[in-house]
Amino acid sequence: MADVYENLRRQGITLPPPKKDGRYFDRIVPFGESLLYTSGFSPNMPGEPNLSGRIGKEYTVGQGAHFASNVICNILSAVEAEIGDLNKIRRFIKMLCFIAGAEDFTQQAAVADGASDLLIRLFGERAGKPARSAIGVAVLPHNSPVEIELLLELKH
Amino acid sequence: MADVYENLRRQGITLPPPKKDGRYFDRIVPFGESLLYTSGFSPNMPGEPNLSGRIGKEYTVGQGAHFASNVICNILSAVEAEIGDLNKIRRFIKMLCFIAGAEDFTQQAAVADGASDLLIRLFGERAGKPARSAIGVAVLPHNSPVEIELLLELKH
Amino acid sequence: MADVYENLRRQGITLPPPKKDGRYFDRIVPFGESLLYTSGFSPNMPGEPNLSGRIGKEYTVGQGAHFASNVICNILSAVEAEIGDLNKIRRFIKMLCFIAGAEDFTQQAAVADGASDLLIRLFGERAGKPARSAIGVAVLPHNSPVEIELLLELKH
Repeated sequence: MADVYENLRRQGITLPPPKKDGRYFDRIVPFGESLLYTSGFSPNMPGEPNLSGRIGKEYTVGQGAHFASNVICNILSAVEAEIGDLNKIRRFIKMLCFIAGAEDFTQQAAVADGASDLLIRLFGERAGKPARSAIGVAVLPHNSPVEIELLLELKH
Repeated sequence: MADVYENLRRQGITLPPPKKDGRYFDRIVPFGESLLYTSGFSPNMPGEPNLSGRIGKEYTVGQGAHFASNVICNILSAVEAEIGDLNKIRRFIKMLCFIAGAEDFTQQAAVADGASDLLIRLFGERAGKPARSAIGVAVLPHNSPVEIELLLELKH
Repeated sequence: MADVYENLRRQGITLPPPKKDGRYFDRIVPFGESLLYTSGFSPNMPGEPNLSGRIGKEYTVGQGAHFASNVICNILSAVEAEIGDLNKIRRFIKMLCFIAGAEDFTQQAAVADGASDLLIRLFGERAGKPARSAIGVAVLPHNSPVEIELLLELKH
């Protein structure tokens, strides 16, 4: 697999600048030998209005998948700020994807695929495919349509 | 504790054949020294129609507990395909159980107990009792009534 | 950072007595080198009636934040029973906070802050700030308004 930054360029992606940690939680927490847990991240991008609504209601499945890929960009920006170089990532271990959807919305997997698809494009089939749960939740903080948290492992 | 396969026979359980990993996620991901994370698994069994509905609405609590034990069978089938021998499991560390229920359904614990009960029957009190969270979610992928993910540790 | 027990005294907090493990799950599970996963804990305190309702409906945000800090007291009581001394905790790694709220309730973060705030007061900025996800769920076991699970790391 090529350099992650080369892959970002090929996908035409510029990572957003990292945000600061909140007063009440850290965005990235290293632990154990070489593990990192991320907080739940939103798909909101700097300079754009914050998203507010549900998939299957205010937003389409396709928009949801795009939002999920934006969450990954926000997470990668924060991970890079923590570890300095995204090529240090050995593998994405676990993805937990929360999707605020309409009451009868059952395509959570298709939304989460937007996040998985970008991870695979950037890190390859082996490193970019975590175990995954995708669930429909009642409502997310600030009415965000999607929130994703990741557990990942760094190279030794 | 006896051999896991002996316990499976005593319970009259034949594990279903393992499914292939999805295009966008792996079903079982080993990490760290000896840990495994599973994806969220459904209770759907091969040869039977996929379940669709909510506990407390289309399905009873008793059915929900049975579905939860079927999720465990599906997970064990996948773990066996990954590690070769279920006797290598040291302990189930953490269970996260998502239950799609009617709006006023509050017996999530009774549903999750169906999964816990089978783990204890197969692996014993010590290895089979993980820490657990059971929550009621709005809706699950493909309208599944139950989804469970597990973190487990292998023997060194 | 001062001794945790000194900090508890300064906050005027007496931890409740630990409850026994359930028949179907353990409240605290140690794993790996020095990690602990907790089950999802409720805010119910001994001698008080169990809480039943949703934030934004039967309970206010302020009450929710207080409930979240009570969950932390219940967790710390259980962790102490497991490891003997809360000063052995190196860091809180990950908090997953489930909030049962009214349909239009989007201040999950403000509720979770009640838990984070107490952890920081007791363990300091470095050890007490985990990565965090806070989500609004449909309904929690026994209609509890809040449920929190924690991953934490002990000193070597």
